[in-house]
Amino acid sequence: MKNIDFSDVNITGGYWQKRQEINRETTVHAVYERFRDTHRFAALTCTWKEGDPDMPHIFWDSDVAKWIEGAAYILKDGENQELTEIIEEAIDNIIQNSDENGYFNSHFLVTRKNERFTHRSQHELYCAGHLIEAAVAYYNITGRDRFLKAMCRYADYIEKVFKEEKSAAFTTPGHPELELALMRLYKATGEKRYAELAKYFIDEHGRHEKEKEPDGFANEYYNQDDVPLRNRRTAEGHCVRALYLLCGMADVAEEYGDEALKAACERCFDNITQKRMYITGGVGSTCLGEAFTVDYDLPNRTAYAETCAAISLAMFAGRMLKFGASAKYGDIVEKAMYNGIMSGVSMDGRSFFYENPLEVDPGFNDRNTSTVQKEHFSITQRVEVFECSCCPPNILRFLASIGGFLYGVDEDTLYVHQYMDSEAETEGVKLKVKTVYPADGKIVLSCKTSKQYLALRIPAWCENFHINREYERKDGYAYIKLTGADEIQMELDMPVRLVRANRRVHENAGRVAVMRGPVVYCAEGVDNGPDVRSIALDRSSRFELADSEFLLPVLRTVGYRPRETEQLYVKDSETYEKIPLTLIPYYAFANRGTTEMSVWILKK
Amino acid sequence: MKNIDFSDVNITGGYWQKRQEINRETTVHAVYERFRDTHRFAALTCTWKEGDPDMPHIFWDSDVAKWIEGAAYILKDGENQELTEIIEEAIDNIIQNSDENGYFNSHFLVTRKNERFTHRSQHELYCAGHLIEAAVAYYNITGRDRFLKAMCRYADYIEKVFKEEKSAAFTTPGHPELELALMRLYKATGEKRYAELAKYFIDEHGRHEKEKEPDGFANEYYNQDDVPLRNRRTAEGHCVRALYLLCGMADVAEEYGDEALKAACERCFDNITQKRMYITGGVGSTCLGEAFTVDYDLPNRTAYAETCAAISLAMFAGRMLKFGASAKYGDIVEKAMYNGIMSGVSMDGRSFFYENPLEVDPGFNDRNTSTVQKEHFSITQRVEVFECSCCPPNILRFLASIGGFLYGVDEDTLYVHQYMDSEAETEGVKLKVKTVYPADGKIVLSCKTSKQYLALRIPAWCENFHINREYERKDGYAYIKLTGADEIQMELDMPVRLVRANRRVHENAGRVAVMRGPVVYCAEGVDNGPDVRSIALDRSSRFELADSEFLLPVLRTVGYRPRETEQLYVKDSETYEKIPLTLIPYYAFANRGTTEMSVWILKK
Repeated sequence: MKNIDFSDVNITGGYWQKRQEINRETTVHAVYERFRDTHRFAALTCTWKEGDPDMPHIFWDSDVAKWIEGAAYILKDGENQELTEIIEEAIDNIIQNSDENGYFNSHFLVTRKNERFTHRSQHELYCAGHLIEAAVAYYNITGRDRFLKAMCRYADYIEKVFKEEKSAAFTTPGHPELELALMRLYKATGEKRYAELAKYFIDEHGRHEKEKEPDGFANEYYNQDDVPLRNRRTAEGHCVRALYLLCGMADVAEEYGDEALKAACERCFDNITQKRMYITGGVGSTCLGEAFTVDYDLPNRTAYAETCAAISLAMFAGRMLKFGASAKYGDIVEKAMYNGIMSGVSMDGRSFFYENPLEVDPGFNDRNTSTVQKEHFSITQRVEVFECSCCPPNILRFLASIGGFLYGVDEDTLYVHQYMDSEAETEGVKLKVKTVYPADGKIVLSCKTSKQYLALRIPAWCENFHINREYERKDGYAYIKLTGADEIQMELDMPVRLVRANRRVHENAGRVAVMRGPVVYCAEGVDNGPDVRSIALDRSSRFELADSEFLLPVLRTVGYRPRETEQLYVKDSETYEKIPLTLIPYYAFANRGTTEMSVWILKK
Repeated sequence: MKNIDFSDVNITGGYWQKRQEINRETTVHAVYERFRDTHRFAALTCTWKEGDPDMPHIFWDSDVAKWIEGAAYILKDGENQELTEIIEEAIDNIIQNSDENGYFNSHFLVTRKNERFTHRSQHELYCAGHLIEAAVAYYNITGRDRFLKAMCRYADYIEKVFKEEKSAAFTTPGHPELELALMRLYKATGEKRYAELAKYFIDEHGRHEKEKEPDGFANEYYNQDDVPLRNRRTAEGHCVRALYLLCGMADVAEEYGDEALKAACERCFDNITQKRMYITGGVGSTCLGEAFTVDYDLPNRTAYAETCAAISLAMFAGRMLKFGASAKYGDIVEKAMYNGIMSGVSMDGRSFFYENPLEVDPGFNDRNTSTVQKEHFSITQRVEVFECSCCPPNILRFLASIGGFLYGVDEDTLYVHQYMDSEAETEGVKLKVKTVYPADGKIVLSCKTSKQYLALRIPAWCENFHINREYERKDGYAYIKLTGADEIQMELDMPVRLVRANRRVHENAGRVAVMRGPVVYCAEGVDNGPDVRSIALDRSSRFELADSEFLLPVLRTVGYRPRETEQLYVKDSETYEKIPLTLIPYYAFANRGTTEMSVWILKK
């Protein structure tokens, strides 16, 4: 199956149109300004000298590159001189300061000049990957190719150093991402050797004993060095690294028809989504190494669940569709996009979370302990920029290109993976979707196409739905025979529902998550008063929908809070006070000041 | 009120007789052997030289001293040549190697010789305190005074250096304990200046800006330097330090009739027991600084709850009775002794916990994360000796002298704080108690005394009780008018009961602890299968008592475990499997191999 590229899709209404508007009007500027203020753009001039302040950091190029990629996607919506000038100036600097081999890195070009490609852990190839992605994006949108050509020279140099001469001090990227970038470069240029280089890195990863050795605080799992990738059975280590690498693996597996590699991707997808993923689509159970831990270990308050990890999970799930339509992939894209990704950005588009916990208990976070060292809890309010600020531009590029997750085509079928008010047009296909989903479940699809079938994903959460045409179900999709020009009406029943976790997730025992469609809800202290973790739902609770400032409805019901007592331990009794309980979409938490929050609500 | 000293009390049956027997037959020898093997006793010879292995550690003297104290208490039960020889040899070494001023420290006498009394954090005065306590104990039991005299010389030297000359590099003990030891030395010798020195340290503590400065990882709370002690409102910092200091404060407050100091003790007692204490009597919510944190922050799996902290809480509560009978003090002694203290030693008396968590989830402890650093979870099986092995000899001395917690007298009343099968005889009082409490609640007390009243503590957990005599209740005690020779029968109703935590303890929301009398129960995986945290009790559960290998009954009831599912998140439904659920006394957990354990059980 081939995706319909985001550039052939317009979001024309609803939740995502609004989110894209904020992304375009606010986020792209806000992130630029913070990156400018923090000298990330200036670093590209390579004028820093020993003794100067603000030494370019090893991962700054990747921040700027992701911003360029996101800004380039926004140019698709129309000319924008301001963004174009910033991008062009950045490209000028990158090209002017690239060395004769094509190498560019704003850190290693101005300091530690003899240490190029000697530190596997220092993000050099990761930055290269993001620069390549930015160049491909800018070329695809604008047709201007000088950045692309510069990055081809850089990729050629990497090929020479790592694959031909093997003269680098290490074999494979410490922070994967270059693999998927090289596959994009191959698609953009048609130069097969970039795919070969991606395949080379994937073939070699996990095969080198030296790379398994502990490196500082990292062990063999951190960079996915524990096993050769075709032997991988579980997702291990730093989540973003693991998932970018899985994206590259999926791309290579598809290009080369590599069944062993594809099977490893499938095993990891199932391991993540059935054993190691928060209900929000967040992954990363510990801040120690920003990593996967073990099956069913999903603590809520100390969840790491980095925004970039949810984005890369969606990217990986989207890529798995290349191997054929199965609703489980679109389900995960949808889960991540409505929850664990969008929680990463404030409603106004200006500030960001790096970590996305499922529980916030501020009274216990700032512990007055007797040591200078503190236990790690994530910040409780979003900020405009981080020292390690990968997440803000990642949200920027994700939102600007979200249309690429909606549709796919194969020989005889047009697939709808995600439901958004939108229009798509590509070879032999013209599709218009009208919907306010997931505000409600009504979706009208008008299509003109020579394809024989329209395949609609029926989300796993949906128990009842109606389509005004005959259909056949297969792997979670409803297949409808087309006549050439069709209008199809579909309605997904979307009652509020209580979801529980597998009993092995001990953290969530006795608790439920409240969901409506793909949206996970949470309770905040600002609405519900103190001790949110102690408030219970009745198992037969009824919920009312109410309009809100958060683009999608909030839920209102009755909650039960134990009565206050002076004593620490008292004889148990069923003495609750009934309270009005308001639940808001999880993505909207922490938009009204620091307050308690819990996704998993006690069940009475 | 004056305590009846443990030397005037014999435990004659029941749970504690058995525990004392194991202490006398096994623990005292096992701890000695491990301390001998680890060179702790050899260190007293002060023959170590630079370059030798096994340099005496800064706190080894305190380990040996606590062992001597415990062994001395055991001598009360009859001659024991083996223990006496070990003690006498240790005393020989201490006396022979004390310097001319009386100073003894097996670390600073052989290394860093010029650094005496320059490192507040290095346990010098703490070791001195324990040596003094050992000397007092040995003198009290045997009447032999050469160790006592040596320690008087040491105390005199400390007085000179710290109080007269003020020539030490710091003012007050970093690890408190000397204060209470000096008060014991005063009681043993009648030398008031030891009480004065204790008072001096307590007056000065928290007054010196330099001692508030961060010292390595420790901040101003760690050693209780945040405020002068009479201003203290909450218990802060390292729990054992805080509680030993509170013991000293209570002793000094009583000796000097110091109302401000007494009020600080009362505030701290209430703060600890109503806001910062586990239901087991354990304290210390974090391993970071082994410390108190903030009110209601009582995580179960990462509970620190050091055995020594529960012991020192019992010591502090016992001392508070000096100010007058209030059942809340005896309640806490009882809670700690049956739960958070006795969990610190295996049923066979050979091995020990330092930390006493209220939940063990071994599958999640040994996390396969991507970093070399691991999150801190306590060990899951007791061990024979620790590098920092304060707890084993602390249990030894606590158990050997537990009789001292039972009875008190004032002018006209004989108080019974704890119920054990025992005999007590002191001036004007002869008392015999027959009971198997807390196996059941029947207690028969025979007393001959000139006191006018017998006051029996009615535990706070006891809703119904019967006494075969008229009584008046005051501050939790039942006061019975005596006739000179009385036999009083009492029965405390002891149904199994469910206890919940204050709703502010978010960790325990929706869960109950199962208790019978003072005993907290827990569920272990070895009895109940996997996912103990997910097993629920019905709110109207009935419990059956059954004999067990753990000296007190186990409880049997019906539990409800969610059915196993493949999926990670499923629509909530009430599908449980009924299982036979066995609960064992908390103190007995981890005696049958590593397994899941939970005190707080879900309520269906």
